[in-house]
Amino acid sequence: MPSHTLQSRETKSLPARIALSAAATRGAHLRTEDFGGWLAERGRAHTFRVERIPFAELDGWSFQESTGNLVHRSGRFFTVEGLHVTEQGEPYGDGPYADWYQPIIKQPEVGVLGILVKEFDGVLHFLMQAKMEPGNPNLLQLSPTVQATRSNYTKAHQGADVKYIEHFVGPNRGRIIADVLQSEHGSWFYRKSNRNMVVEAVGDVPLLDDFCWLTLGQIHELLHRDNVVNMDARTVLSCLPVQETSDGALLSDTELLSWITGERTRHCVQAERVPLDSIPGWKRGEMAIEHEAGRYFNVVAVSVRAENREVTGWTQPLFEPVGQGLTAFLTRRFGGVPHVLVHARVEGGFLDTVELGPTVQYTPDNYAHLPAKKRPGFLDTVLQADTDRIRYEAVHSEEGGRFLNAESRYLVVEVDEAEAPLDAPPGYAWVTPAQLTSLARHGHYLNVQARTMLACLNATAVGTR
Amino acid sequence: MPSHTLQSRETKSLPARIALSAAATRGAHLRTEDFGGWLAERGRAHTFRVERIPFAELDGWSFQESTGNLVHRSGRFFTVEGLHVTEQGEPYGDGPYADWYQPIIKQPEVGVLGILVKEFDGVLHFLMQAKMEPGNPNLLQLSPTVQATRSNYTKAHQGADVKYIEHFVGPNRGRIIADVLQSEHGSWFYRKSNRNMVVEAVGDVPLLDDFCWLTLGQIHELLHRDNVVNMDARTVLSCLPVQETSDGALLSDTELLSWITGERTRHCVQAERVPLDSIPGWKRGEMAIEHEAGRYFNVVAVSVRAENREVTGWTQPLFEPVGQGLTAFLTRRFGGVPHVLVHARVEGGFLDTVELGPTVQYTPDNYAHLPAKKRPGFLDTVLQADTDRIRYEAVHSEEGGRFLNAESRYLVVEVDEAEAPLDAPPGYAWVTPAQLTSLARHGHYLNVQARTMLACLNATAVGTR
Repeated sequence: MPSHTLQSRETKSLPARIALSAAATRGAHLRTEDFGGWLAERGRAHTFRVERIPFAELDGWSFQESTGNLVHRSGRFFTVEGLHVTEQGEPYGDGPYADWYQPIIKQPEVGVLGILVKEFDGVLHFLMQAKMEPGNPNLLQLSPTVQATRSNYTKAHQGADVKYIEHFVGPNRGRIIADVLQSEHGSWFYRKSNRNMVVEAVGDVPLLDDFCWLTLGQIHELLHRDNVVNMDARTVLSCLPVQETSDGALLSDTELLSWITGERTRHCVQAERVPLDSIPGWKRGEMAIEHEAGRYFNVVAVSVRAENREVTGWTQPLFEPVGQGLTAFLTRRFGGVPHVLVHARVEGGFLDTVELGPTVQYTPDNYAHLPAKKRPGFLDTVLQADTDRIRYEAVHSEEGGRFLNAESRYLVVEVDEAEAPLDAPPGYAWVTPAQLTSLARHGHYLNVQARTMLACLNATAVGTR
Repeated sequence: MPSHTLQSRETKSLPARIALSAAATRGAHLRTEDFGGWLAERGRAHTFRVERIPFAELDGWSFQESTGNLVHRSGRFFTVEGLHVTEQGEPYGDGPYADWYQPIIKQPEVGVLGILVKEFDGVLHFLMQAKMEPGNPNLLQLSPTVQATRSNYTKAHQGADVKYIEHFVGPNRGRIIADVLQSEHGSWFYRKSNRNMVVEAVGDVPLLDDFCWLTLGQIHELLHRDNVVNMDARTVLSCLPVQETSDGALLSDTELLSWITGERTRHCVQAERVPLDSIPGWKRGEMAIEHEAGRYFNVVAVSVRAENREVTGWTQPLFEPVGQGLTAFLTRRFGGVPHVLVHARVEGGFLDTVELGPTVQYTPDNYAHLPAKKRPGFLDTVLQADTDRIRYEAVHSEEGGRFLNAESRYLVVEVDEAEAPLDAPPGYAWVTPAQLTSLARHGHYLNVQARTMLACLNATAVGTR
């Protein structure tokens, strides 16, 4: 019998190669100072027009007679349905009892979000795309190399080929650096996940229009700008196996996993899909489905005209949050090692009850009617933080293919014992960025906002220690 | 600000302490040769009687008028409902298209399956319980220290206290060694998971009736006997952080996780709960709900009389498979390191589409009507294996609280290139037992049969290398 070459279970050299790319603020191709000009030029090379339209002007989309669900006549893409979420109190869960209805996007198909990497001059570069999404406030942002559903790249849309997809699927794909199913927004999607991939190219890679090679250091610089690096790029970046250190942590990994298990166990949540026209508290008009008190988000419709999409024009529904979100990690050093305060969150669309989110994740307008005591924890700490405590700040938008002007201000705020005690309150835990990176190797631990924050932490001194 | 003591992220000494217990075939308490007598004595100390009854004689259970679902009047315990499972073909998944209906148990509540460990004479001992479950063929088997739902231990059943529960939940619990939500049988349960815990006791632990302290080496010996170590004990044991080695593997961990992600992505499965009385192919009689062709399993009812359960007598439904199952890992050495061939399985009740199962997992009677080509892969290899190729063999039963006489023969069979090639067919992959142990630290990677097999591998030379 032939002897078979075994591999080491971990590629020891990889974190160092990623660290080298993170340290490279100059790329072999586009200079960072030229990036803005390049993106603007890509914008001028294509004309996009996005307009709000009444639901009646949607092409191929309609409200299903029996349910009121918003569906496409092909049965493809996604549907907008109703969701009924309940959380039980004792003896099944800690409670308190909660019960709400909301619209939700159902899109069972898994998409590929993939970044292709390749060494130039001994440094890993990331192939990024200037991509238009109708919901982005500035339309064009930097996306992964590939952002496509399976029916996309198997041609069900009868659109153009998905560029570079052969590096991610099929027999000739490159070397896998990360490949994990990660959740999308649990408040807006029903159990949606996407395949987050980082792949190292084998052989030459032609550089096509709308694409550019950047080092991780360059991307980190861009992550400090508002509305440049799109959500799909941020979540893929969060899955990178960045440099591990031998640093300790307040909780051992076993204790951290146990805490997550405990949080999942103490929340007894049920989410049932229900007809969209049956959900109390929401009303449907010609232009929008809205919450009666004007809170949370609206379901709206847009028409899109573009030239460099898979198809050249279309209409579609989008979810539009009612206000800008605020998303923040509080950070402290313990024993010299930076920690961030994660929050175990219940969102109705999560596959597995609870995922870890940032310390604060909320849309202030949704809570403006509540007394201070009922507002989310640590909110005032973030709102009142002095500028010199802010270690990171940028506005990013969520997935522009489904969400319209869904902007959040992302912050990392350094705090002290008085503001956020070592002994974290129930539902919160102090963890290191390195521990978040270990969790991001697996699905359903970190929600999409925490993954954006992890990418941002890695782009700052807090993450790189 | 005080300086805070950080911990190492991994407790380096733990695998060695577990290995020491695994090497200890003599315990500080019960001798292995006396175990059979002890278990028999515990059986005599209590009288149990389990009888099949018609559904009409169930106390508190009835078929709900609108759905035909089998429910308890309290709304607690579990329900038997219908499930409609579809798997899509292109362009959403690899297919082939599949579509079936079946009864399924819905029990949203998470249970605790916990083993308490403690050092005696410097060796970790495991506190095991002689526990009666009505579905066990021999009624009494060895279970974890604690096997309870939340409403169990918070007294909703108005039953006796759950012994030793204070070591697993609440402020005075012990030191966590493992704590992970793991799936139950995906073919019989709808998205059920239990909390698998191993906890090291702090302080003295009184030894109560029906409990015994055993080393891991002793438990490994008992795992070679038929129907002694129950399913709950086996799944908890599989989560132990056993000795890691620096051995390589055919796939790196990143490649293995990528392969799992790919298997999840290529299967596009939807499972919808439907009324039990609406499912085609199944018929309800006075004594059973059966498949029309007599395949798969029956839903039946039993009456139980016992003295040492939380309550002293009850009736309940159980699922009864139509025949003995066959569950096997094929094993080969590559580069001197043992590997087993895992199978990415779709089961209708899985939370996340696919989990890894053993190479072969099936009930032969369900496939007897099919031509050889349509029978499960590697089945004949297992059925025709010479005795001298069998590295492990025992009959174990599945959870006796829900399943009646659900026995499977568990095998580890050594094979060669002709029987199972290095280049595994689609849906299969060669992995090391150490890699399975890493996966078992997280939920929803290994199905319950694979976890039983992992516990058995660790009990044999194959697992311990």
